[in-house]
Amino acid sequence: MIYPSKHIEQAVSEVSRLPGIGKKTALRLVLHLLKMNLEEVEKFCSSILLMKKEVKTCAICCNYSDGEKCNICESNARKKKMVCVVETVREVLAIENTGQYQGVYHVLGGVISPVDGVGPEKLNIQKLLQRVESGEVEEIIMALNPTIEGDTTIYYLIKKLEHSQVKISSISRGIAIGSELEYTDEITLARSIATRLPYNYSKEHTEIKANTL
Amino acid sequence: MIYPSKHIEQAVSEVSRLPGIGKKTALRLVLHLLKMNLEEVEKFCSSILLMKKEVKTCAICCNYSDGEKCNICESNARKKKMVCVVETVREVLAIENTGQYQGVYHVLGGVISPVDGVGPEKLNIQKLLQRVESGEVEEIIMALNPTIEGDTTIYYLIKKLEHSQVKISSISRGIAIGSELEYTDEITLARSIATRLPYNYSKEHTEIKANTL
Repeated sequence: MIYPSKHIEQAVSEVSRLPGIGKKTALRLVLHLLKMNLEEVEKFCSSILLMKKEVKTCAICCNYSDGEKCNICESNARKKKMVCVVETVREVLAIENTGQYQGVYHVLGGVISPVDGVGPEKLNIQKLLQRVESGEVEEIIMALNPTIEGDTTIYYLIKKLEHSQVKISSISRGIAIGSELEYTDEITLARSIATRLPYNYSKEHTEIKANTL
Repeated sequence: MIYPSKHIEQAVSEVSRLPGIGKKTALRLVLHLLKMNLEEVEKFCSSILLMKKEVKTCAICCNYSDGEKCNICESNARKKKMVCVVETVREVLAIENTGQYQGVYHVLGGVISPVDGVGPEKLNIQKLLQRVESGEVEEIIMALNPTIEGDTTIYYLIKKLEHSQVKISSISRGIAIGSELEYTDEITLARSIATRLPYNYSKEHTEIKANTL
């Protein structure tokens, strides 16, 4: 594409490096920024730079945070003995938005993926093991994405934690509420039959959930 | 949504002001920016600010430009007597990318839209009339979007230009090449029949195009 200005070209090239933003969308965004007031554009840029400089990682759970500890780890209303292991901060936000979970988190920062060169040493696994060793954790809930890499990571963590007394569970996988059996993929459907819950267990499970979440 | 940091919240709020970017996409982009190096983020922001400060408007056609005149108005290879009237710089880029047009442009900066409070005085119409009055323009091609506002603007311009000797045309509207009649909307189809081209005219028209474009 031929741009009317080399500055526009440079800005488009920078903006199109963001995920899911192609050259056409980048141009649309850049032309919108050009139409905004200078003060607004300055505010836009300074808010991004300030965030980049100020946002820290929570010393306990590796969530993003303004201080040394994140809001969740600092809150007294949270059940500190229940730790939900997630891949990134995005999953923390997703679970927080359900408004149902009262425990704390541990952000791994990714999943084990040999293809992408991500081994266990690149993740915040050591910190999780330290939390468990310190005896402050009673239950770990694995909330990783249902992918091969997610399952590999869960398997690795279970192996590492097998000598500890901690209770380990994984969030349930199956048919999403509101979806239709007919259109569910074969793997999910087959697995949801294999891991079916008997009604008694389900009732008990519901009680457990109601008690502990 | 509850954000882990007020700086992230502020950045999400700024990014989500861009067109077509909701809160969820903004969060995705912001978290990506957080993962980038500080130097990369600084380069990202400075390229946007530099663009905002340096990009000028061409004194002749109101296209964006690095200098006083844009590349197109400065080029000697362009036919300066043929002016294509467009709504925004995006249409200039779209037409430039066809590689077929050899004339110059005039960017109106919008279309007449009383509903949105855009009257003729808010557009670069006066500048276009001055270009025509100076006698440097022989033909004007209206390349506005086929909307009510676009047609209103064309009608307004034709009224303003009716005493000048300038030749006025509009880009043709009809069935897009490669599309199917069956799936074309009724208005376009009806109009394309009403404004049908006889084969002779079409041939002549093709010749005209080949000569003048």
